[in-house]
Amino acid sequence: MPTVVIALGGNALQEAGSAATAENQLDAVYKTCVHIAEIVKDGWRVVIAHGNGPQVGRIVLQNEAARDITPAMPFDVCGAMSQGMIGYHIQQGLAEVLRRQGIARPVVTVVTQVVVDKDDPGFANPTKPIGPFYMAGQAEAIAAQKGYAMKEDAGRGFRRVVASPAPVAIVEIDAVRALMERGFIPITVGGGGIPVIKNADGSLSGAAAVIDKDHAAELLAEQLGADVLLILTAVEQVSLHYHKPDQRQLSLVSAQEAAEYVALGHFAPGSMLPKMEAAMRFARSGSGRRAIITSLDQAARALNGQAGTTVTMERA
Amino acid sequence: MPTVVIALGGNALQEAGSAATAENQLDAVYKTCVHIAEIVKDGWRVVIAHGNGPQVGRIVLQNEAARDITPAMPFDVCGAMSQGMIGYHIQQGLAEVLRRQGIARPVVTVVTQVVVDKDDPGFANPTKPIGPFYMAGQAEAIAAQKGYAMKEDAGRGFRRVVASPAPVAIVEIDAVRALMERGFIPITVGGGGIPVIKNADGSLSGAAAVIDKDHAAELLAEQLGADVLLILTAVEQVSLHYHKPDQRQLSLVSAQEAAEYVALGHFAPGSMLPKMEAAMRFARSGSGRRAIITSLDQAARALNGQAGTTVTMERA
Repeated sequence: MPTVVIALGGNALQEAGSAATAENQLDAVYKTCVHIAEIVKDGWRVVIAHGNGPQVGRIVLQNEAARDITPAMPFDVCGAMSQGMIGYHIQQGLAEVLRRQGIARPVVTVVTQVVVDKDDPGFANPTKPIGPFYMAGQAEAIAAQKGYAMKEDAGRGFRRVVASPAPVAIVEIDAVRALMERGFIPITVGGGGIPVIKNADGSLSGAAAVIDKDHAAELLAEQLGADVLLILTAVEQVSLHYHKPDQRQLSLVSAQEAAEYVALGHFAPGSMLPKMEAAMRFARSGSGRRAIITSLDQAARALNGQAGTTVTMERA
Repeated sequence: MPTVVIALGGNALQEAGSAATAENQLDAVYKTCVHIAEIVKDGWRVVIAHGNGPQVGRIVLQNEAARDITPAMPFDVCGAMSQGMIGYHIQQGLAEVLRRQGIARPVVTVVTQVVVDKDDPGFANPTKPIGPFYMAGQAEAIAAQKGYAMKEDAGRGFRRVVASPAPVAIVEIDAVRALMERGFIPITVGGGGIPVIKNADGSLSGAAAVIDKDHAAELLAEQLGADVLLILTAVEQVSLHYHKPDQRQLSLVSAQEAAEYVALGHFAPGSMLPKMEAAMRFARSGSGRRAIITSLDQAARALNGQAGTTVTMERA
C-alpha cells in the first residue's frame, strides 16, 4: 500500500474571508476531508500534517487579551493548544466523511513536538510575525521587558517576530509510525510541530519559533518512508513567471530543474519557495519518491499523475 | 505485564495557590512525573488520564476576554485545546524523567473524544459551572441570547452551568490500545474527554458538557482490560466521617461495603463521591480488578498494597 503524507495549508482549515468561528472552521474541515477521503478510497495509506498560522495567531490574541486575568501562555504552549483544536476537528470530520462512504478507518491526532537546533541561524534573525499589533512605544516597552524581537509589519504597527528554524527531529515519530502501520490515519506535526530545543543535559524545552509546516511534513514523509509528499495550496500548479504575461505552468520537473528555477527567483519566499524547497528535498531523499504541489480539489487526480506539479529526483 | 490506568487530578497538574503560569504548570507536571516514573520502573504498563478543570476554565476566560477581537470557541473546542496543552507538558515531562533514569519509553498524547448520551439526565439539569462570573443582569442577557443555563455560584455572581453526563464510549480507544500494546505510554481522555454526542445520522458533534474525569478513566480502564484503576487525589486514603472526631481511614473495602458507605452519605458529591463511584464500578467490572484511591506521593506504594484505599469486587 503506497503511503502519502498530505500537508494541509491554511485554506484547507478555514475558508478565506469567512469569520473565524468554530462552525466555519469545522465546515471547511469537512469540505477538505471529502478530498482526503477520495485519496483513502484510492488505496493510499494517508498521514496528515497541517498548518496553524491563523489559528495559533488567534490563540495568542486571546492569551494577550486576558493577560490581566490569567497568565498568557508562551508560544510553544499556544501551538500545543492549536494542535488539540485543529486535530479534534480533522479527526471528527475525516472519520465521519469516511464512515458515510462505508470506510471504518480511525483517525487520530498525536500531539507532536519537533526538535529545532538552538544554533539555527533563524534564531539570530527572527522574521515570522505572531500575535497582536502594537504601537511603537508599546512595542519598545514589551521588547525591553520580555526580550521579544519586535518589527514593523507593513505599516500596520509593530509585531513580535520569532525564528523560523529548520525541523531536525520529530519527537513522536515512533508513535506516528506505529499508528500508521496499524491502519490508523495519524494527524501530526500540526503547525509544523511544537518547537522544542534540546538542552545541554539532553532535556527538551519549548521554544518561541514557527517551524515551516511544509518542511516539517517533508521530514515526516522522509522518516516514514512515504512514497509521496503531497503539499496542498491555493493553486493547481506551480508556475514560472507567476502572474506575468508569460506565466508557464509546471507539470513535471526534476529536483535539479526546480533548483534552477529557485536560483532564478521564480518562487516567492514565505509562499511557493518553502513548498518548492520541501518538494525538492523530498524528491532527492530516496529513489522513486516524488513530491506533488497542487490544490485540494485536484489532490486525488494529482496522485494519479493527472494534475498538479510533480517534482521527481530525475527527469522522467 | 500488569496494566494501570492513572487518573491525575488537578493538584497533579498545578500546585494549589501558585500562579497559573506555564512555568509553574510544567514544574508541577515534572514533580508528578517522578511518581509516575516510579510506577513504570516497578514494571507496570501505564496509561494516563487527567483532569483539566482549572486549565479549561482559563481557556474559556481567554476566549471570552477576546470575543470582540476573535470569535470565542465553544466549550468542546476549548477542551480539545486543553488536551493539547496538558498533554504536551506531560509527554515532555514524563519522557524526560524516564530518560534520566535510563528508560526509553515514549509518551504520546491522543486527542480524545468521548461520546455521551444526548438524553443523559445531566443535560436536563446542568450543574457544572464553567467560565467567568457575571452580574445578574449580564447573566440574564447571556442566557436569553445564547440559551446558556446560568446559576448563582456561592454568592460570587452568576456562571454558566453545563451538564456532566456519563461517558458512554471512547472514540479513539483503538488508537490508545494500539499504542499501549506497542510499549507507548498514552495520555488520553484529558478532562474526561472532549464531549461529543451521536446525532441521528450517526455523526458526532461536540457538546457543552464536562465529563467527570474519574468516570472517563474508569471506562478507559475497563475497555483496556486494565488490572488497576489508580485515582490520584489530595489525600492518602478515603475516610469515613471525614474531618470529624471519629474519622476513620479506609484501607481495603469491597465494592459492596463501599456502596453502603455511599448510601450513608460519607462521601461529598463533586469530591470523593465520583471517585468512589468510579472505583466501585471498576472493581465490579471484572474478576481480579481493583481500584485504588490515594495521593500522588503514595501512588507507587499503594500499587504494592502498602498505602491508599483499595476497592475490590469481593472482600479479601
